[in-house]
Amino acid sequence: MFISFEGIEGSGKGTVLRAVCGRLAEQGVDFLSTREPGGSDLGAPLRALLLDARQSIVPRAELFLYLADRAQHVAQVIRPALAAGRPVLSDRYADSTIVYQGYGRGLNVPELFRLNESAVDGLWPELTFLLDIEPEIGLERARRRNAELGLSVTEGRFEAEAMSFHRTIRRGYLDWAAEHHERFRVIDGSRPPEDVFREVWDILSPRFS
Amino acid sequence: MFISFEGIEGSGKGTVLRAVCGRLAEQGVDFLSTREPGGSDLGAPLRALLLDARQSIVPRAELFLYLADRAQHVAQVIRPALAAGRPVLSDRYADSTIVYQGYGRGLNVPELFRLNESAVDGLWPELTFLLDIEPEIGLERARRRNAELGLSVTEGRFEAEAMSFHRTIRRGYLDWAAEHHERFRVIDGSRPPEDVFREVWDILSPRFS
Repeated sequence: MFISFEGIEGSGKGTVLRAVCGRLAEQGVDFLSTREPGGSDLGAPLRALLLDARQSIVPRAELFLYLADRAQHVAQVIRPALAAGRPVLSDRYADSTIVYQGYGRGLNVPELFRLNESAVDGLWPELTFLLDIEPEIGLERARRRNAELGLSVTEGRFEAEAMSFHRTIRRGYLDWAAEHHERFRVIDGSRPPEDVFREVWDILSPRFS
Repeated sequence: MFISFEGIEGSGKGTVLRAVCGRLAEQGVDFLSTREPGGSDLGAPLRALLLDARQSIVPRAELFLYLADRAQHVAQVIRPALAAGRPVLSDRYADSTIVYQGYGRGLNVPELFRLNESAVDGLWPELTFLLDIEPEIGLERARRRNAELGLSVTEGRFEAEAMSFHRTIRRGYLDWAAEHHERFRVIDGSRPPEDVFREVWDILSPRFS
């Protein structure tokens, strides 16, 4: 069982994923929680490179770095866990790249799909939660979180983008989810975290019993 | 004008490229000499990561790292130089990836071609010199060079591979060059450097006059 969580910055993906992991742990499920970028050995140095807004990385190079991390993540982390019968939950996966690089940076979406297909060697989640939220609310949450962590507002590459970029990303996610409705569940992320968790858990729990 | 130099370790690519650059400089040509991996801003950290034989990078991830460096290299270095009318000479380019990852690591060659096509956004050299040499001779040269530089024999990822790997790469290069004979020139790299240079320069000089 392979499940991913998607959404813009501040949509609450991380919060709901931690709540799901807490509940699974209580139930004694042996699962793997991971994330992209940064989920593999290769991830830490690449994540540092990618999140460093001072690097003038061209869109195509950025794309291939995400794909490298993903290829390593799939081969080294996700496939071995699935092969051992452990459910895998991932904070972001290939859909993030398609939405941020395609809808956001203007790269060709069908080409992106083929490149990702190549990187993951055909492995897609069976269920993807899209935490949908107004970018104004999401970004405000992300800023508050950064302030609490002592990071500057512009510390994250994507968080430093103009609001119009985040609106494009939100629309891109909704379009992409509609095109792949068989595995996407769109969740209203603007509600209190406990309500968001309850909706996600109602969908997930039958799969774990 | 975009020209690349290919071949196994120790084939003499670097030596002949330096000699060509020396001659061009004498003639007052404003050219750009570059190399892959490592020719872009992104190149240095990626090169360090790739050449570190201790990292257990899966073949697919290695491929995408090379492609990221290449995409950055093309967009940031090669295209601007060509647009400014400067000839570009590169020590390795996309053909290296196709031969090392395809023939060497067993990835699908047509898929590799499409992925590279995507990374370079359609830019291929108009002329590629393949320095062909017996792997036994090439590796011995590479070992001697490493010893002179104070590097251990296994310092380079590819230099540490078994001889059968290098034989496969040599055959892969010859096959690939035959398939793309319109732009490849196969040069016997086992001769003295001055003879190799003379043959290469005889092909190149009419293009610079």
